[in-house]
Amino acid sequence: MKDQIPYKIYLEEHEMPTAWYNLRADMKNKPAPLLNPGTLNPMTFEELQPVFCDELIRQELDDTSPYFPIPEKILSFYKMYRPAPLVRAYCLEEQLQTPAKIYYKFEGSNTSGSHKLNSAIAQAYYAKQQGLKGITTETGAGQWGTALSMACAYLGLDLKVFMVKCSYEQKPFRREVMRTYGAQVTPSPSDTTAVGRKILEAHPDTTGSLGCAISEAVEAAVTNPGYRYALGSVLAQVVLHQSIIGLETKAAMDKYGIKPDIIIGCAGGGSNLAGLIAPFMREKLRGEADYRFIAAEPASCPSFTRGKYAYDFCDTGKICPLAKMYTLGSGFLPSANHAGGLRFHGMSSTLSQLYADGLMEARALEQTPVFEAAQRFARVEGILPAPESSHAIRAAIDEALHCKETGEEKTILFGLSGTGYFDLAAYGKYNDGTMTDRVPTDEELAQGFAGLPNVR
Amino acid sequence: MKDQIPYKIYLEEHEMPTAWYNLRADMKNKPAPLLNPGTLNPMTFEELQPVFCDELIRQELDDTSPYFPIPEKILSFYKMYRPAPLVRAYCLEEQLQTPAKIYYKFEGSNTSGSHKLNSAIAQAYYAKQQGLKGITTETGAGQWGTALSMACAYLGLDLKVFMVKCSYEQKPFRREVMRTYGAQVTPSPSDTTAVGRKILEAHPDTTGSLGCAISEAVEAAVTNPGYRYALGSVLAQVVLHQSIIGLETKAAMDKYGIKPDIIIGCAGGGSNLAGLIAPFMREKLRGEADYRFIAAEPASCPSFTRGKYAYDFCDTGKICPLAKMYTLGSGFLPSANHAGGLRFHGMSSTLSQLYADGLMEARALEQTPVFEAAQRFARVEGILPAPESSHAIRAAIDEALHCKETGEEKTILFGLSGTGYFDLAAYGKYNDGTMTDRVPTDEELAQGFAGLPNVR
Repeated sequence: MKDQIPYKIYLEEHEMPTAWYNLRADMKNKPAPLLNPGTLNPMTFEELQPVFCDELIRQELDDTSPYFPIPEKILSFYKMYRPAPLVRAYCLEEQLQTPAKIYYKFEGSNTSGSHKLNSAIAQAYYAKQQGLKGITTETGAGQWGTALSMACAYLGLDLKVFMVKCSYEQKPFRREVMRTYGAQVTPSPSDTTAVGRKILEAHPDTTGSLGCAISEAVEAAVTNPGYRYALGSVLAQVVLHQSIIGLETKAAMDKYGIKPDIIIGCAGGGSNLAGLIAPFMREKLRGEADYRFIAAEPASCPSFTRGKYAYDFCDTGKICPLAKMYTLGSGFLPSANHAGGLRFHGMSSTLSQLYADGLMEARALEQTPVFEAAQRFARVEGILPAPESSHAIRAAIDEALHCKETGEEKTILFGLSGTGYFDLAAYGKYNDGTMTDRVPTDEELAQGFAGLPNVR
Repeated sequence: MKDQIPYKIYLEEHEMPTAWYNLRADMKNKPAPLLNPGTLNPMTFEELQPVFCDELIRQELDDTSPYFPIPEKILSFYKMYRPAPLVRAYCLEEQLQTPAKIYYKFEGSNTSGSHKLNSAIAQAYYAKQQGLKGITTETGAGQWGTALSMACAYLGLDLKVFMVKCSYEQKPFRREVMRTYGAQVTPSPSDTTAVGRKILEAHPDTTGSLGCAISEAVEAAVTNPGYRYALGSVLAQVVLHQSIIGLETKAAMDKYGIKPDIIIGCAGGGSNLAGLIAPFMREKLRGEADYRFIAAEPASCPSFTRGKYAYDFCDTGKICPLAKMYTLGSGFLPSANHAGGLRFHGMSSTLSQLYADGLMEARALEQTPVFEAAQRFARVEGILPAPESSHAIRAAIDEALHCKETGEEKTILFGLSGTGYFDLAAYGKYNDGTMTDRVPTDEELAQGFAGLPNVR
């Protein structure tokens, strides 16, 4: 074996993290609080109660406690699919002929196919613990809905998923996975909610949007007794749960004395990236170590690289709290891109503050070179990556090729957040050579910014 | 932790098997040899040379060497996705309220989604080693074609896949995975081979069959210089490569002092089952230990439970060697069943001989109860199983429920050979309640038997 480092580093069960790490606790500049869209005051526990279950609100609002113990039942569930392997990409290194050492943390080896399950089980658990009957949520590409339906099946909770209508129709397989796990899947907009009926009346032929599905899911949570709403990214609670990714990665690297120089993750709402970097960023914030962090985002939806740092709506219906984040405006419509999970107009407030403070970098990537990297990776590493995750692969390959030029033996770590089994229509376009890249014009961005609320 | 047994038992890299085990070496009654369909004499090395590469023929014909060292390059490839986890199904046990202890070996955590990759990399490796340009093969449901395209991409070999036309059209995503890995995928029957043109002339509207695709792939291998043919199951060489499944499983169980009472696998061509049971059957054959072995097959294609033990053709075109096996006749047409990988009319000669000698049992299962088991398993264990593998799940659940009645604390091991990501249309039928079960009538079986060749 080269360097004595195995291809895959697995932690033993007793080495697995038993608490989530709350990155905000070590930040000097805390992320800005969620604001009530009516009063523009910070959202209180009571104001959030109709939407989220109590323990999750506590986690959402707590920016000082560094660790939250993971409940036993969640640890048991994690053990079914975790520890996720940390893989040394020997084959990719060889193919690139780079002196760099490349590692990736693979979060796709569970049925939901992505890291989303880490937070899904936590959110479902606290709902169950509170004695609730069920959960509502929305899903676009379907990874989050799949993860949450698995978690709810495990705990015996009802789940109502509002699935963006065009995905419901074009991704019937995603729908069937959720139904197999017992979820009720409704195409959105639907006539089951007031907001859905209103939208259908105004636009009877609409194929839906994530913003609209969020509004329906929130309404369904608030109006159905015993239900709360769950969201798969952006929120601080989700970032907290996803810290399991980074904690495991760091424990595995420490075990073998490996220190990464560069840490890369794809960024949509930001939970995967924030989870991966959390314990490393902790050391950077505390001056104990230094790392380069790179957020890889799609050039078609460039929140970090071309967005504004401002308060904005999280949903198109404008009923959710305002969040301060790098945003393109809630009315911004990204051009077609197959990384559906990266098409959110905003970004985690936690990551946004870190980026504003110069603690991490960001890079916008077009989808054709991203799929080129995905295919190259798949052919030598044997995993078919999700288009979202492939943004991180592209950035990692670019860094490794840079090392080849300079001769530097850097250690690169990236997050492989999920698999692409349900994205083969996109791969087909790449295979056929009919994939297109389009970045928004300055005018299109200006239109999105024009819709920003006037807060401070 | 209950019993100190972790949820998942992983071997360390240095504990992984470094040689395949050849089950035939320990069999007193050897499997009957392949016969030349013209002369009815055993196929010779030279007769097989136009079809298979040399080292694979040696493996195919050698029924005495107990171990074949795994070449270093294949070991490296295995390390990318192996060891496969051996999972203690704590959650399923709890849900069944059974005193039985259930374990499963999960072979689906690689992009091909199944155990097929274990033999694909071996067959591709020996082709590369012989300096060949490429490989031809057929694929029905697509698992084998996917696995072989991954292996060929890794080694830089050309791959021509003949994909049954109806699958090519109805499973475009499978096709795109193969293309992403660089394979040339042709719908079969095609006009690129003489046999394909002949079939198209006679049946211009045919949607193809596995038998026809095999014939095309063999013709393409024989007529294209530098090409050989590869098959994903049935053959002794494939059973040899798949022994990695059982060897890893046994090493992991031995490590924790676990001895299974019952070992269950689904059986189509038989490679997955034979691979799983190999080292356990070795002990049984040598009188060192006893185990119950159960082959779980579809009631719609019941080779073991209702077939005849006789020489038969492996393909519909009748150009391949004759094999002695439990068979329903090469002309038998199984009724619609969603476990495409189990629809082969025959069975591995090795398993057939073991079954004839009373060393294992078989059980035929209908698909609705199989999908019921699949769904139950998915909801508590978090893995979406392939319909094929779900036959083993059904049999394991039935054994565990039997233990519940008798109070016996048996240890049940089953093979979870793959995932169901590409079988969601089938899950959809189950979810909709429109799945049907149909077993062949005695008259239908008699028709199949009528086509058996008159050998001995």
